[in-house]
Amino acid sequence: MSKTIKKIGVLTSGGDSPGMNAAIRSVVRTCAFHNIECVGIYRGYQGMIEGDFKELGPRSVNNIINKGGTFLKSARSQEFRTPEGRKKAHDNLVKEGVEALVVIGGDGSFTGGLLFNAEFGFPVIGIPGTIDNDIYGTSHTLGYDTALNTVVEVIDKIRDTASSHNRLFLVEVMGRDAGHIALNAGIGAGAEEILIPEEDLGLERLMDSLKRSKSTGKTSSIVVIAEGDKTGKNVFELKDYVESNFPEYDVRVSVLGHMQRGGSPSCFDRVLASRLGVKAVESILEGKSNYMVGLLNDKIALTPLEQAIKGHTEIDRELLRVSDIMSI
Amino acid sequence: MSKTIKKIGVLTSGGDSPGMNAAIRSVVRTCAFHNIECVGIYRGYQGMIEGDFKELGPRSVNNIINKGGTFLKSARSQEFRTPEGRKKAHDNLVKEGVEALVVIGGDGSFTGGLLFNAEFGFPVIGIPGTIDNDIYGTSHTLGYDTALNTVVEVIDKIRDTASSHNRLFLVEVMGRDAGHIALNAGIGAGAEEILIPEEDLGLERLMDSLKRSKSTGKTSSIVVIAEGDKTGKNVFELKDYVESNFPEYDVRVSVLGHMQRGGSPSCFDRVLASRLGVKAVESILEGKSNYMVGLLNDKIALTPLEQAIKGHTEIDRELLRVSDIMSI
Amino acid sequence: MSKTIKKIGVLTSGGDSPGMNAAIRSVVRTCAFHNIECVGIYRGYQGMIEGDFKELGPRSVNNIINKGGTFLKSARSQEFRTPEGRKKAHDNLVKEGVEALVVIGGDGSFTGGLLFNAEFGFPVIGIPGTIDNDIYGTSHTLGYDTALNTVVEVIDKIRDTASSHNRLFLVEVMGRDAGHIALNAGIGAGAEEILIPEEDLGLERLMDSLKRSKSTGKTSSIVVIAEGDKTGKNVFELKDYVESNFPEYDVRVSVLGHMQRGGSPSCFDRVLASRLGVKAVESILEGKSNYMVGLLNDKIALTPLEQAIKGHTEIDRELLRVSDIMSI
Amino acid sequence: MSKTIKKIGVLTSGGDSPGMNAAIRSVVRTCAFHNIECVGIYRGYQGMIEGDFKELGPRSVNNIINKGGTFLKSARSQEFRTPEGRKKAHDNLVKEGVEALVVIGGDGSFTGGLLFNAEFGFPVIGIPGTIDNDIYGTSHTLGYDTALNTVVEVIDKIRDTASSHNRLFLVEVMGRDAGHIALNAGIGAGAEEILIPEEDLGLERLMDSLKRSKSTGKTSSIVVIAEGDKTGKNVFELKDYVESNFPEYDVRVSVLGHMQRGGSPSCFDRVLASRLGVKAVESILEGKSNYMVGLLNDKIALTPLEQAIKGHTEIDRELLRVSDIMSI
Repeated sequence: MSKTIKKIGVLTSGGDSPGMNAAIRSVVRTCAFHNIECVGIYRGYQGMIEGDFKELGPRSVNNIINKGGTFLKSARSQEFRTPEGRKKAHDNLVKEGVEALVVIGGDGSFTGGLLFNAEFGFPVIGIPGTIDNDIYGTSHTLGYDTALNTVVEVIDKIRDTASSHNRLFLVEVMGRDAGHIALNAGIGAGAEEILIPEEDLGLERLMDSLKRSKSTGKTSSIVVIAEGDKTGKNVFELKDYVESNFPEYDVRVSVLGHMQRGGSPSCFDRVLASRLGVKAVESILEGKSNYMVGLLNDKIALTPLEQAIKGHTEIDRELLRVSDIMSI
Repeated sequence: MSKTIKKIGVLTSGGDSPGMNAAIRSVVRTCAFHNIECVGIYRGYQGMIEGDFKELGPRSVNNIINKGGTFLKSARSQEFRTPEGRKKAHDNLVKEGVEALVVIGGDGSFTGGLLFNAEFGFPVIGIPGTIDNDIYGTSHTLGYDTALNTVVEVIDKIRDTASSHNRLFLVEVMGRDAGHIALNAGIGAGAEEILIPEEDLGLERLMDSLKRSKSTGKTSSIVVIAEGDKTGKNVFELKDYVESNFPEYDVRVSVLGHMQRGGSPSCFDRVLASRLGVKAVESILEGKSNYMVGLLNDKIALTPLEQAIKGHTEIDRELLRVSDIMSI
Repeated sequence: MSKTIKKIGVLTSGGDSPGMNAAIRSVVRTCAFHNIECVGIYRGYQGMIEGDFKELGPRSVNNIINKGGTFLKSARSQEFRTPEGRKKAHDNLVKEGVEALVVIGGDGSFTGGLLFNAEFGFPVIGIPGTIDNDIYGTSHTLGYDTALNTVVEVIDKIRDTASSHNRLFLVEVMGRDAGHIALNAGIGAGAEEILIPEEDLGLERLMDSLKRSKSTGKTSSIVVIAEGDKTGKNVFELKDYVESNFPEYDVRVSVLGHMQRGGSPSCFDRVLASRLGVKAVESILEGKSNYMVGLLNDKIALTPLEQAIKGHTEIDRELLRVSDIMSI
Repeated sequence: MSKTIKKIGVLTSGGDSPGMNAAIRSVVRTCAFHNIECVGIYRGYQGMIEGDFKELGPRSVNNIINKGGTFLKSARSQEFRTPEGRKKAHDNLVKEGVEALVVIGGDGSFTGGLLFNAEFGFPVIGIPGTIDNDIYGTSHTLGYDTALNTVVEVIDKIRDTASSHNRLFLVEVMGRDAGHIALNAGIGAGAEEILIPEEDLGLERLMDSLKRSKSTGKTSSIVVIAEGDKTGKNVFELKDYVESNFPEYDVRVSVLGHMQRGGSPSCFDRVLASRLGVKAVESILEGKSNYMVGLLNDKIALTPLEQAIKGHTEIDRELLRVSDIMSI
């Protein structure tokens, strides 16, 4: 292991996700395990610029593995986009004695980290924390599994009332660019139709599906829609469209929104966070930089940050077929 | 006990609420206990008109005490508002041998029941099933306690992400005419401000509260808003208003919607449903009609349906003071 | 209001219960609201003896309303049972400037408080915090509602597997002296039989009930048993007894244990905690002492601590009848 | 696709697990999708012997994707272990026109299926349904992910009360032969020590760990123990042993038991069940037999049933190291 690193900084950046606290805990304790110091950087890159640091020991992270959100908080930083901002941030790290960085976040956060590394040669390792699962180099981002459970639990509740009233519900879930949540939670919640950014099914197809649904004796329906779906209509416009085509349907809209980012992480996300944190710190100690730690084929593996950012995560198209079969 | 009643019909009507299934189960099993028959009427008054009936025995209601929604389904019936519709319904009941009715629902459902009784002298007992808790004659309507838990659990998740980002969330909950959910779930979720139909706090007051919140060191805030609040702005207009007054705030909106009506009932709602069902059936057997069974001072008590409909439920104003103190 | 009190101490003592954190939060913020200081006393009376104090301001209790347990921790103190121990405790309070005490706990904790008041004339107000609901002067103790929900959620899971296998489950829940949890959670979980300390049903009756259960076509059964039931057999002995009488039954035992004390409090417990905390502090400010704040007929009311300790809480016998009817 | 198969039978056998209902639903709907008939066989092999069959169409499996347990029920069958029993079962299938079998269960269920195939040449495909995750040929058995979440949620509650009282809890979880649940849920719940059948850590090591735990300032501890751990002591004997070595510890035991088998399946288990059901039916239609469908590297894949039964699933030893680091 590289002997030079004596102090590692850890921050969370971008949208928060369940499991970030568990990942911070893992980073902190792995540092302690290897007898190196760990510094928590508050409010992401903005806190780095402002020197908002705090020493973290193994007891600092007691009782947080099961807490949603991130106790280090997250923030977007305009200032970090400027060379002056990054210079300030670097000066602060140097002053604090921090010699390497673990960045927990998504694409944008990793881009910041790469830039920082390019300018100052500062070692950076990324941990993919976002509920959207849209990062290349990991089958699961931190918080994704929890978000799926949150969504199916909520749709289970909506299903209760939909079934009681023979209603059609349009449920919008997160996913501007990626349909992972919509597709998996849609199948998990037994949705009759799923609309995702990766596929332009067209409104015709939705109408056909609803017609078929009625003809097979279904009296209530759930349609799960990713924010970024390709119908060209938002969820409220879709409601109007469906109602004008199916006057017999009582259509209701539910936009799940930010609740999907919160909540106590699932066991999967807690274990994943623990594994990723260990690997992130030990990769730094091995002298590595500019990698993201991720889960590939159930093993923790490294992917160059540059690939993680530029790469594209595909949805599993077989799941579209499974969804079609299930909604017969 | 009155000897004439040999068969009781039970229906759910209006908006569904958690605990309706548990109440149906209780009605069915209490009938069986007293050796009288029970008929389930599907889709409320509409099913009564259409003769959509099914005999229910004690084993018909196995494993439903913990299920949200109502397996008898609910529906609004325009036809029942006409004398012809009600005539048809009555004919069906007579044909089926049904001699009394347990109506599980809200104000509108009880009004239908009263009318039916007035026209045909048909015994009717009501069970208050609605999450809004806006029915006179019971401290708790069926489903209200469960809805409160659903709302606080969701706001707990929103709080995770609000705290991580120093954000202000406007959370709209159900309650067009009554602020019970907003007030209690708001206190339970630790909301910084609560807007309810019963009080016109005015926008000034909200702005003052947010200012005070910031000045005391709070970095994120949750405002809980009942659908029917009196600011004259809907939740999205409120967002714009707050943002124009607090440009430093990143304001997000969450409309909880129909998920509040679903979910497995809380223990409280299950026990309440069991108690109300027993009392409803036994009241019929004692020859009573036109009463609602409810919970008053922790005891099951009868209130004339007419009072239940016309009466007004007050929020507990002491809770407004508690909320003010808690949000210091 | 009494002008002399400038600083109030708060502690949790005895078995912990969900809602204790919410109650501490309410005490702290009500103090802040009335511009008096508040001191948290760690580990109950033991911490009072050791001077384990910490000033608490309104921001000290951020984000704890939804956390189970008590961040002030609880402990049993042998030393507080001695006059020397109590003398030390009083000296510490005086030195710290604490002039009154809010004690959150059960019977034993209140007894300690009364003794302390008798010896030193120190104002003491109690908040009933225990899941057992066995305290006179309140219809609900803090944590009881949450524990009921925890128990029914667990039994719902057990029911899944019981139904899949036609099994009989004996589920032991908390309640050494009081059957409130067993009786209410038993009804809520749809238990076929409920054994509580308040009633000696005898084993015959259990056997009869199981026979009847089978004869009515039930293929699986849940029996809920309070720790302190009067059969004279513990739950494992009961299993043997049932199996020797019903060789066809595959009997399983589940002892729920301490999980019943934990978990995020229900909305009901959070609101109750908030109300009780306000009343506790304001009662002190009004010059009152030796009272417990409680919920009676949905209103917050005071009961002399002495009555609260000596009084006896009765189970609602009507619930036994409801349980019998429901298990037909 | 093979043209001869016109009717498929599906059964659940052995211990039930969350996701079995979702798998049945998937089998039924995939059959409908391919225009073949599907027959549900109740109570596993025993129901096959007794001819306890029911035609299942796509609407027969509405609203069960989110239900724990198995509506087809499960049972152990002594009779199926005899040639006569299997003969009867085969006769019944032939009479019913069932031409292939989907068996949802574990090792024992698959062994029965293989035997049945060997004797009658009957096509059999297995779906791994058990919470223990101890089946070769799949990274995840159906129900395992849900069980992990159930366990961490319960230990989270126990942690609340452990932290409030500075207590040591010994928590026994399922896993007679495999430590998957203990190891993953232990890491997820932040356990200080984990005892599993795969490793004989020895009691010394546990004592050392507890000593270290105390010395690092931890005031409460959770030890997660698989049923089949190798210390040679059961969990109650372990309690006595720890207490005799650490008189200062207040040790409590919690045996989680059967609740781990129940509950609404996680999104992961629902999606997995849906995928496995599709593959099982389509494998039969392709003329395959004696395979288990499983998840390998996030893809659905076939493994010969014989390998699945004889093979051994290893725990991920890297997780032991992660656990050690996390409990620093």
